[in-house]
Amino acid sequence: VRVHDLSTPALLFDADALEHNLATMAAVRPGPALRPHVKAHKCTALAREQARHGHTGFTCATPREVVGLAETGLGDDLLLANETLDPHRLRAMADAPGRVTVAVDSADTIDAAVANGIAEVLIDVNVGLPRCGCPPQEAGRLADAARARGLVVRGVMGYEGHLMVIEDAERQRTEVAKAMDLLLQAHADVGGDVVSAGGTGTYAIHDRVTEVQAGSYALMDTYYAKLPLPFRQAHFLETTVISANNEWAVCDAGLKSLGMDHGNPAIDGYVVWFCSDEHVTFAPAEGSAIPPPGDRVKVIPAHVDPTITLHERAYVVRGDDVLDTWPIDLRGW
Amino acid sequence: VRVHDLSTPALLFDADALEHNLATMAAVRPGPALRPHVKAHKCTALAREQARHGHTGFTCATPREVVGLAETGLGDDLLLANETLDPHRLRAMADAPGRVTVAVDSADTIDAAVANGIAEVLIDVNVGLPRCGCPPQEAGRLADAARARGLVVRGVMGYEGHLMVIEDAERQRTEVAKAMDLLLQAHADVGGDVVSAGGTGTYAIHDRVTEVQAGSYALMDTYYAKLPLPFRQAHFLETTVISANNEWAVCDAGLKSLGMDHGNPAIDGYVVWFCSDEHVTFAPAEGSAIPPPGDRVKVIPAHVDPTITLHERAYVVRGDDVLDTWPIDLRGW
Repeated sequence: VRVHDLSTPALLFDADALEHNLATMAAVRPGPALRPHVKAHKCTALAREQARHGHTGFTCATPREVVGLAETGLGDDLLLANETLDPHRLRAMADAPGRVTVAVDSADTIDAAVANGIAEVLIDVNVGLPRCGCPPQEAGRLADAARARGLVVRGVMGYEGHLMVIEDAERQRTEVAKAMDLLLQAHADVGGDVVSAGGTGTYAIHDRVTEVQAGSYALMDTYYAKLPLPFRQAHFLETTVISANNEWAVCDAGLKSLGMDHGNPAIDGYVVWFCSDEHVTFAPAEGSAIPPPGDRVKVIPAHVDPTITLHERAYVVRGDDVLDTWPIDLRGW
Repeated sequence: VRVHDLSTPALLFDADALEHNLATMAAVRPGPALRPHVKAHKCTALAREQARHGHTGFTCATPREVVGLAETGLGDDLLLANETLDPHRLRAMADAPGRVTVAVDSADTIDAAVANGIAEVLIDVNVGLPRCGCPPQEAGRLADAARARGLVVRGVMGYEGHLMVIEDAERQRTEVAKAMDLLLQAHADVGGDVVSAGGTGTYAIHDRVTEVQAGSYALMDTYYAKLPLPFRQAHFLETTVISANNEWAVCDAGLKSLGMDHGNPAIDGYVVWFCSDEHVTFAPAEGSAIPPPGDRVKVIPAHVDPTITLHERAYVVRGDDVLDTWPIDLRGW
């Protein structure tokens, strides 16, 4: 099968760029120093590639991701880096064929874990992002409470998501150090072998954690491309021009195939005007020609995670050759 | 089944609000005066309710929507109000068990329709939105070309999407009239029985078209709620609070369950701070209490179409009772 024969919009993974990204990360953070976040790709086939590069523990955002990885044989060490109180989903994770650790940040989440057969937890610590996680000074007390209920507390996690994209590298380093001071203070009270933090924007500046939770590095997007990272854009939407005139053209990606929370996607050589449900309207930049109906155009998503979740499958490609088809099989909750 | 027993995030359709919306629209634009746009809900069960209210012709944005409706017995009169050059998908629509009309706006789209067995077309006319559609003065020439190739040309369509949400009603009426002047000029050159335009924001001010293509009216969203429309919010995300403190709480909707191109969703009585992949962080407004972990919160999406496409099913509810489960079965392309 050739790329130009695929019906569109089609999600493409560039085999060489993906391999470059996985190898580059594995060189800096080998083996268990990286716990790849599967929420960025929701694809067990891609997770298997990450395991082939030495990373056999995974970070997950949903119980579905945990259970799906476990069922496909990738359950060596799965972390739900998120809170849930859902008894059915906690039970499904507890029964999954793998080692499962869940994040807790409150008495309620500890109760739910205990009640539904979860054996191991991490204390989720707020290090500045206003989202989940207990205050650092409460982490030790929560760990004691969890252990008193029979849970194994493996350590702490604290995601500095508010510091992922800071273009001033020195300021980012300073801010991340302050956030990690909070996490290590909590770890001193909690104990355990795991100190988990970080993401694609900060993976290279962590020297006090045991593992980094990066996910976007594998496929990248225009948002992370603002930073001087060594990773290449590895996913695209193959689209077809369906309408064109002397001023603009329209291709068949849109709000139903692109995550839009980081704004419009990009098209090399063109300016994107706006997106509709099934349309991207774009115009030439720097004298490029307007493509006629039927031409193919590659659209570069602004945010990888919510883009991938809109697709049933990805085509792994090299140039115009389709090498493989990977189901996006970890969608849903 | 009760709503509070559903795993979350769960897409809810409020049965009474939906019925109100369908009845209200059918009273103003009965029978064929409305061609409901199924891209807003992608749900054959909801389309069947629209048919029960008298609307048996449907507007579609994708071949998948056309073929899916036809296969479920709702194929009386299906319009693909969008261009495609995909031979497989054109052929699938031509072979579907229903009457299928596709939009064309160029020699290329006419060629593709002819080559793949499509019998009937509409000429798509640009009435001001920079997207698909031929210039009004070229519509007659395209219709002649289509007829010369053996196609039946049923008339014209022209979507004034740039005029849907204008809060000054008088200005909206004036601008829509100018757009419809262009469409009627094209129709005079094209002929045929169909003049199709409009949407939820303009459904009540069209007096020169034969049908309106509204879709969002059935389920609504916070974007259309800015207008003084008689429709009620009829879809919500049922979510669970997974983390809370003295300043904010976090529930388990997010970028993977909400269309974000119109910005953050709303929560009655609260201010939404931001959304992450699987989180909405929100804080109290006007003295409302911060809900503890385990509480349920209803999230109101900002844009219905890209929200619905993220869900496998919707639960039809009245209060806390789940009356039915409807698959979102027209997703994909």
